[in-house]
Amino acid sequence: MSVTVITYDRSMGRWEPNARGRLEQAALALYRERGFEQVTVTEIAGRAGLTERTFFRHYADKREVLFGGSSALQELLVRAVTEAPEASAPIDVVVAALAAAGAQLEERRDLARQRQAIIDANPELQERELVKLATFATALAGALRERGVSEPAASLTGQAGIAVFRVAFERWVNDIGQRGLPELIRESFDELKALTAGT
Amino acid sequence: MSVTVITYDRSMGRWEPNARGRLEQAALALYRERGFEQVTVTEIAGRAGLTERTFFRHYADKREVLFGGSSALQELLVRAVTEAPEASAPIDVVVAALAAAGAQLEERRDLARQRQAIIDANPELQERELVKLATFATALAGALRERGVSEPAASLTGQAGIAVFRVAFERWVNDIGQRGLPELIRESFDELKALTAGT
Repeated sequence: MSVTVITYDRSMGRWEPNARGRLEQAALALYRERGFEQVTVTEIAGRAGLTERTFFRHYADKREVLFGGSSALQELLVRAVTEAPEASAPIDVVVAALAAAGAQLEERRDLARQRQAIIDANPELQERELVKLATFATALAGALRERGVSEPAASLTGQAGIAVFRVAFERWVNDIGQRGLPELIRESFDELKALTAGT
Repeated sequence: MSVTVITYDRSMGRWEPNARGRLEQAALALYRERGFEQVTVTEIAGRAGLTERTFFRHYADKREVLFGGSSALQELLVRAVTEAPEASAPIDVVVAALAAAGAQLEERRDLARQRQAIIDANPELQERELVKLATFATALAGALRERGVSEPAASLTGQAGIAVFRVAFERWVNDIGQRGLPELIRESFDELKALTAGT
């Protein structure tokens, strides 16, 4: 397949409908079948019926297929915090922002599950995922400080929010049930409240 | 210095008092002076007045100087959870375990600060540190499940505990004040309670 695609360049000079999505699906399928490390960009492009050149128009490398959405998600989180009603408590602001991000992920549940299985199978990708979440926590804290929340409350709220998100996300990915991620985020937050209030 | 130490082997066949501690201090000093990446094991041993052979009796590589204490700390956390009074609430068990770990770190405050400055300067070490903290959260959750705490409460408590620990640790490392880490952990936890209770 990797040889075929070199002579079979469908994208040369013309627009490919949903090339980015096709590349993502092809990449996720290949990463799951053969392991992230083993797959080449040539193979991903071949599976998607596109060229390497088209791949590199959409992604810097094969890791970016898994993490390319991070910055958009982070912007969404920060914007949600920035635009939240002034009177809201910091933790409510963060939970609402995470639930908004969760609603976006909800539309990609199947892809998100595939992606998580790939990450779980690869320690390097797990590290990258931890860095991503830590960056989200820092960004949330920064957006809270912009709202006038002082330290350490801002950092603590950001970290606690991400703690809630991680647990909710894991339940969402592994859950056989059909509950949505925003609902699981709110539920996990209520559980955190119950856990801390009881002491 | 790296040449000197090859001909000047003080550890050949005899016991070196506090070799591990001397190697750690030498490594931290060199990592700060020149950056973690640039320093070799030969240089660390040379600075400590010891041989490379002695270095490798204590550390697998130069990264382990920074992370060699992780497994002992994790054991301490798990043991503290396991041995906590049966009636204690999960979050109190975790906060007490983290405060116990904090008391151990307290004795090494100066080294911990040096270590953190080195980690902050190096993205790869930051990733490794995030993995360490994520592993602590998982270990805490596992120890809670052993006590009969169900999911997702166990994972949520482990994650929230680490969120509190991170914020407290950062304050401790950067604080000009003289407050101890166990105190800052308890204070951060009280703040988390206040943040979640107010909503």
